[in-house]
Amino acid sequence: MNIETYFPFWSKLDDAQRRKLESAASLSRFERGAVLHAGSNDCTGLFVVLNGRLRAYTLSDEGKELTLYRLLDRDICLFSASCIMRSIEFDIIIAAEEDTEVLLIPSDVYKELMEQSAAVANYTSELMGARFSDVMWLMDQLLNHKLDSRLAALLLEEHTLDGGETLPITHERIAAHLGSAREVVTRMLKYFQTEGLVRLERGSVTLLDIDRLRELAADSIR
Amino acid sequence: MNIETYFPFWSKLDDAQRRKLESAASLSRFERGAVLHAGSNDCTGLFVVLNGRLRAYTLSDEGKELTLYRLLDRDICLFSASCIMRSIEFDIIIAAEEDTEVLLIPSDVYKELMEQSAAVANYTSELMGARFSDVMWLMDQLLNHKLDSRLAALLLEEHTLDGGETLPITHERIAAHLGSAREVVTRMLKYFQTEGLVRLERGSVTLLDIDRLRELAADSIR
Repeated sequence: MNIETYFPFWSKLDDAQRRKLESAASLSRFERGAVLHAGSNDCTGLFVVLNGRLRAYTLSDEGKELTLYRLLDRDICLFSASCIMRSIEFDIIIAAEEDTEVLLIPSDVYKELMEQSAAVANYTSELMGARFSDVMWLMDQLLNHKLDSRLAALLLEEHTLDGGETLPITHERIAAHLGSAREVVTRMLKYFQTEGLVRLERGSVTLLDIDRLRELAADSIR
Repeated sequence: MNIETYFPFWSKLDDAQRRKLESAASLSRFERGAVLHAGSNDCTGLFVVLNGRLRAYTLSDEGKELTLYRLLDRDICLFSASCIMRSIEFDIIIAAEEDTEVLLIPSDVYKELMEQSAAVANYTSELMGARFSDVMWLMDQLLNHKLDSRLAALLLEEHTLDGGETLPITHERIAAHLGSAREVVTRMLKYFQTEGLVRLERGSVTLLDIDRLRELAADSIR
């Protein structure tokens, strides 16, 4: 299980803290579709994704889902332990998008470590900052969504020109086409990948769902 | 200046840390309209609001502003020191909405404290969690914005019924009218207040900007 490889703060823990973390961690398996965490009343603990994929989303009062981010191998799910932070006032639902194996660290054990160790506390801040960044990016996309449409339109254009599903194109070239920054394009392509629209490989982009790309592209013409 | 009253972790610091924080803190004044922090390249430090009001917002590529939250007396502005957290990948602009006095804690001093003290690190997480909660609430409003319109419509209706600008109505009664929870209504009323639409007093709501309330209310009929 090698728990130490999942936590960058491991080297800063003392022996008692390491033993505590190790003995409290347990392995859980969730089938595709299972809900691991359903809002703030549910305070299971931190999940470390060993393999599979988790999706974090919110539900509006009207039942509309909004996917916030996804967690893949080695990612750590902090919000399933959000009860350990008083200032978190929102509910996130975490569900398995594929059969998923996780390591569960109970909330009380993690909380105790956070209170004892600045390294653990700062790591927790970094995790929250990363998820906060995901959400800020998503909000910008939702409010000013143009790049997604323009990127989809460009990929379809290249596909028509090229004839194949696998486009031999680099992120740099796409960015140049769109008048955007390479990092911004890379982030959007990764988002397309987690949405199942494309598969990314070194120097190529493979289109997986042309219908949905067409729908996205149509938005840019509206 | 009583710096200790602004930081709940003060009692957990040792003497050297206290002296360091005290001697590094400096008082700054900003006029209404001044920009205190302009994106992630600018890493001034933490601002503690002594009096006045700060507004945190983002700018889209097209130059559209989005107000994320406001900071009032005793609030602490973390994102003006966002460089101390590697995982923060978004840019926030902080500007003074009124003449504002702040206490500035330089980023390097705060970072050192965060690395030494679990109490400081956990306090930082709590600050980030509070701002994350603000943003999640805002995103829900933006995507599923109904309550704001319905609340504006209800206030205007009461105003028409009642004749005056000051409505003798409690948050509970408003919540009952709207079929919503009291806390949700209180949060929205506070948002209306920071937007200058209403003034809240015990047991009453005073309408300050009827034109903008009408605009908001019109959305619910669309």
